Amino acid sequence: MMLTQVGRGTPMGELFRRFWLPAIASADIEEIDGAPVRLRILGEDLIAFRDSNNQVGLVNAWCPHRRANLFFGRNEEAGLRCVYHGWKFDVTGRCVDLPSEPATSNFKNKVKIASYPTVEKGGLVWTYMGPPELQPEFPHYEWAEVPEKHRVINSSLVECNWLQTLEGDIDTAHVSFLHRPLETGKALKWARFVENFGDYVAKDKAPTLTVKETDYGFVYGGRRVGGEDDYYWRFSHWLVPSTSETPGSVERPGRIVVPIDDQHTTSFAFVWHPHRPLSAEEAIANDRTLHQPLRPFQLPDGYIIDTRRSALNKDNDFNIDRKVQKTKRFSGIYGTPPEEDRAMTETMEPVLDRSKEHLGTSDIAIIAMRRRLLRLAKDLQKGIEPPLASKPEAFRTRGFDVVSTHEDFNTAVEECASEIMPPRPAGDAAAADVAAV
Amino acid sequence: MMLTQVGRGTPMGELFRRFWLPAIASADIEEIDGAPVRLRILGEDLIAFRDSNNQVGLVNAWCPHRRANLFFGRNEEAGLRCVYHGWKFDVTGRCVDLPSEPATSNFKNKVKIASYPTVEKGGLVWTYMGPPELQPEFPHYEWAEVPEKHRVINSSLVECNWLQTLEGDIDTAHVSFLHRPLETGKALKWARFVENFGDYVAKDKAPTLTVKETDYGFVYGGRRVGGEDDYYWRFSHWLVPSTSETPGSVERPGRIVVPIDDQHTTSFAFVWHPHRPLSAEEAIANDRTLHQPLRPFQLPDGYIIDTRRSALNKDNDFNIDRKVQKTKRFSGIYGTPPEEDRAMTETMEPVLDRSKEHLGTSDIAIIAMRRRLLRLAKDLQKGIEPPLASKPEAFRTRGFDVVSTHEDFNTAVEECASEIMPPRPAGDAAAADVAAV
Amino acid sequence: MMLTQVGRGTPMGELFRRFWLPAIASADIEEIDGAPVRLRILGEDLIAFRDSNNQVGLVNAWCPHRRANLFFGRNEEAGLRCVYHGWKFDVTGRCVDLPSEPATSNFKNKVKIASYPTVEKGGLVWTYMGPPELQPEFPHYEWAEVPEKHRVINSSLVECNWLQTLEGDIDTAHVSFLHRPLETGKALKWARFVENFGDYVAKDKAPTLTVKETDYGFVYGGRRVGGEDDYYWRFSHWLVPSTSETPGSVERPGRIVVPIDDQHTTSFAFVWHPHRPLSAEEAIANDRTLHQPLRPFQLPDGYIIDTRRSALNKDNDFNIDRKVQKTKRFSGIYGTPPEEDRAMTETMEPVLDRSKEHLGTSDIAIIAMRRRLLRLAKDLQKGIEPPLASKPEAFRTRGFDVVSTHEDFNTAVEECASEIMPPRPAGDAAAADVAAV
Repeated sequence: MMLTQVGRGTPMGELFRRFWLPAIASADIEEIDGAPVRLRILGEDLIAFRDSNNQVGLVNAWCPHRRANLFFGRNEEAGLRCVYHGWKFDVTGRCVDLPSEPATSNFKNKVKIASYPTVEKGGLVWTYMGPPELQPEFPHYEWAEVPEKHRVINSSLVECNWLQTLEGDIDTAHVSFLHRPLETGKALKWARFVENFGDYVAKDKAPTLTVKETDYGFVYGGRRVGGEDDYYWRFSHWLVPSTSETPGSVERPGRIVVPIDDQHTTSFAFVWHPHRPLSAEEAIANDRTLHQPLRPFQLPDGYIIDTRRSALNKDNDFNIDRKVQKTKRFSGIYGTPPEEDRAMTETMEPVLDRSKEHLGTSDIAIIAMRRRLLRLAKDLQKGIEPPLASKPEAFRTRGFDVVSTHEDFNTAVEECASEIMPPRPAGDAAAADVAAV
Repeated sequence: MMLTQVGRGTPMGELFRRFWLPAIASADIEEIDGAPVRLRILGEDLIAFRDSNNQVGLVNAWCPHRRANLFFGRNEEAGLRCVYHGWKFDVTGRCVDLPSEPATSNFKNKVKIASYPTVEKGGLVWTYMGPPELQPEFPHYEWAEVPEKHRVINSSLVECNWLQTLEGDIDTAHVSFLHRPLETGKALKWARFVENFGDYVAKDKAPTLTVKETDYGFVYGGRRVGGEDDYYWRFSHWLVPSTSETPGSVERPGRIVVPIDDQHTTSFAFVWHPHRPLSAEEAIANDRTLHQPLRPFQLPDGYIIDTRRSALNKDNDFNIDRKVQKTKRFSGIYGTPPEEDRAMTETMEPVLDRSKEHLGTSDIAIIAMRRRLLRLAKDLQKGIEPPLASKPEAFRTRGFDVVSTHEDFNTAVEECASEIMPPRPAGDAAAADVAAV
Repeated sequence: MMLTQVGRGTPMGELFRRFWLPAIASADIEEIDGAPVRLRILGEDLIAFRDSNNQVGLVNAWCPHRRANLFFGRNEEAGLRCVYHGWKFDVTGRCVDLPSEPATSNFKNKVKIASYPTVEKGGLVWTYMGPPELQPEFPHYEWAEVPEKHRVINSSLVECNWLQTLEGDIDTAHVSFLHRPLETGKALKWARFVENFGDYVAKDKAPTLTVKETDYGFVYGGRRVGGEDDYYWRFSHWLVPSTSETPGSVERPGRIVVPIDDQHTTSFAFVWHPHRPLSAEEAIANDRTLHQPLRPFQLPDGYIIDTRRSALNKDNDFNIDRKVQKTKRFSGIYGTPPEEDRAMTETMEPVLDRSKEHLGTSDIAIIAMRRRLLRLAKDLQKGIEPPLASKPEAFRTRGFDVVSTHEDFNTAVEECASEIMPPRPAGDAAAADVAAV
């Protein structure tokens, strides 16, 4: 319960409010003075707009005058103007025009709309929703610092609590089941891992997991037995509060889950290559929803947000095909992995009752993450700020997989250290000049 | 909170139950012995039916026997007969046939269904839902007493609390914004005001408002500066509890909002001319939904009522067109003014949190109305009945606008007194012979 | 309130959990290793599946590992395997494979999924959801023991609380109204009763009812006056907790209502002949939904079950036709009787407020049933088990109607005893060898 709720004032809600979180993909709010976008983040209804100066504003959805919804507002001349009585606000929340009062009135200077700072980085618009005086430096995510063509981004709606989504993202064990093709010789098209990845995963379904706590969260390794002497190692990261980076020996995938409210989540997915642009095929491989626009979606309380809901969803049982399930795919779902993942997490209870679980040794990463989050949230309740906030360089990580002769986790990690936690090139200060709006 | 709730026993709910309220347009329940209609008024589920004697009955929706819904009832031979076991009730609620009991039984005389009195007047079926002994004389609304061809009526669903709708109806300031065309030279087609109305409204967007309390509620004037010496005055009325009459120098518009429940409202709109029949153009100008039939609409609790929902509604963002918003209309909504109004009020929270507002001088009518309603509701809680109930002549009002040289509100009102609060012609007793069913 | 709630731990919920209840028609889960089916029974979310050994399993919907929904599971090799991490359970709930843990792990033996025993009998899969040590012998329903061709079964969704549905099923009085054709000479096509049934029912609309308590519930008789000397008797049964058997001098209809949750019900209907196969016409007469498959239906809380919802439902007002109502059918609903019944019970409040009813002499069966259920439920709260559970032979009943010269209920019953409560043929042990899975 404490782990799942994210509203203002809840322990986890406050922890989330200590970190930079993606609000929307830059591509989804591209047009200067274009249509405002409705978001709900951590239970707060917000309007995003790109102003005449190419700054993205993120303000409370409700005009402070009579509480009209600013989604209908006019995005014009460096501000968002409410169409009810013409009040206008800039990206900082300042009221810059209040035409329904006499010209002599000082009322304008007393009115403000709540707004959050934004930063554009790595194809995403990020925001920080915590106390202004505690605003941290932007993390040095390597994937967000590479050139634009090295990376592809997308976002989609997940219709359940954020934690069960995230738990799926850091769960390496289910790869041997949920995402397994049944036809031999068929490669997993959606990701290019080490050669014979499929064979390793099919052969050893009970990987030996090791978790190593770090500044930023943890790195964990899943070891599968290969031949007589070799092991297939998958190294993944979890970064506080809700980012996962999973292996890929060519391009690297990762996801950041951001709570919409307690029962809905946005999953931001990125795929990138550290050293070169992605090929066209690599760029589209990960998600077919990539080129769809945001669309209105009505939440159960009647409020409408703009998001991207997959055509495969719980209303149509993710188009599960029982014949495909018998013969071609373990899951029977003919979608991309995120759709298989959502089929699992969205059809659990909307907020999972974890007291009824039975966790095994394959769940140690999940257990470690819950413990860490609980500790950070409880510390914050006592006034101890999460130490990570002041260490932007700690977030520089990569998922990685390798076939190795090392059986021992620490030895294997050490061997791959430069791939797993690459140092920042000398003189690279790409992130240093980011200025919050 | 006290102002918004209307269920039986709530302070505002009881205040509403001291006044005649429109239940349905006569045209929507025209056929003798026709299909019953499902209404919800002040949170109560009711069935309206026109009986063989051309009387409109308004009874509880649930048969007192086993609580079947009387919507399925047979409207026949001067009564509504439940199809479950054939019990039949007349428009007064009396059980006139109870065929499932032996002929010798006296049970029929012990059974009654709750019913409310109705009056047809001005194209509407009105009801009074308060204590029978306090039933007031029907108000002398002038618009309801003119010949039928002088008037046009319609009703539509508003999907939010009644108060925020009503607050929009008495808010003259938003006319300069929400309903403003952007193309110069384009007349506002939906109403014929004084010549150059559009120019006045566009030129002075911060009208000076004055509210004058009256018996029936208040008259308020909005003064806009015209040329050097002339003022454009708009005089509007608010009549307790929920009627507004707005200016028009040719035909006069008004609206009565009647709560369906705390989150839904029926808006009855009327347009009329004091002295002559409306032209065909005038009669259709105000609402394109005019000739649509009532249709079933499912409320969030699953109950179905018969109402008129606009094709432009919150599910389709009122078809807002951002290009139209940039170039042609301030709102971007290509509908009639009520649809622009609903775009504002329906996309606020369903029941507005007024503690978060910032009201200015343009909101003094709204402030005055809230105070008056609160006082009346609190008085009623203490047992003081609203004094207005016994003054049917007080309700004789007209909206009016004029270009005048008077800067002072009282002087301007005085000049237009016979237009704003016209006396009743001697010998006119049109309303006197109204008898409640 | 006490009578309507059925969740685990509620008085009525516990009473239901002392009896064998139908879960699903056998025909709806026919295929060995076929698709799992989502059910909710007494508020519990369950998955039914027919395994490789032709046994029907009925297990908790949620995998005990991480609570994925087993609807997506693979039904293969004598068990249901979760697609998330491959855990597999047999029909008894035993975990038979747990591949995500090391081969050496003993974890598998510690994991179990809640499951309920099932029996297939009379075309239905039955389950018992109470304490295992109290599991009763399967009742000797005669209709369930006749050869398959003597019987036809169907099930459908009823969108209201189970009790108001059941009350309609044991209410003989409404037959004179709700199901009455208005055109003379038109037979009721949906059931073949004694000759001139329609005449009797139309002539005497206030039948004299008598209820006689029995072991299994009660038998009740409705007497209608026919000619000078003859009476039309309809004998019906109510069997604890929720079975009704109504008369038919050729084939006999009955229904069992099983609560889905407090606001939804499954109605299982059976029609049968004691002595011979049903003709094709007889077999299809009772329900046109018979040959439709189960389909997904979303409950108000968002959960999806597989059920059979009629095309005539509350969303379309059961297609009531007011012209048909005036001229052809009392109800105006052009469906089969269950659809007319549902039009009544589903458009009451979802859970009826019985304090507002006015019950007459035609309601004595309903009153008697409520009293009996309340007494049994209260006794059970005190630890007194329902005595019926140990008397499977008591459930051997038939509905019956007859034209008789007897005015007295007891005399009339006595005359028809062998038709109403037929003895079991010597040597017939059809039910004796039923073994719970």
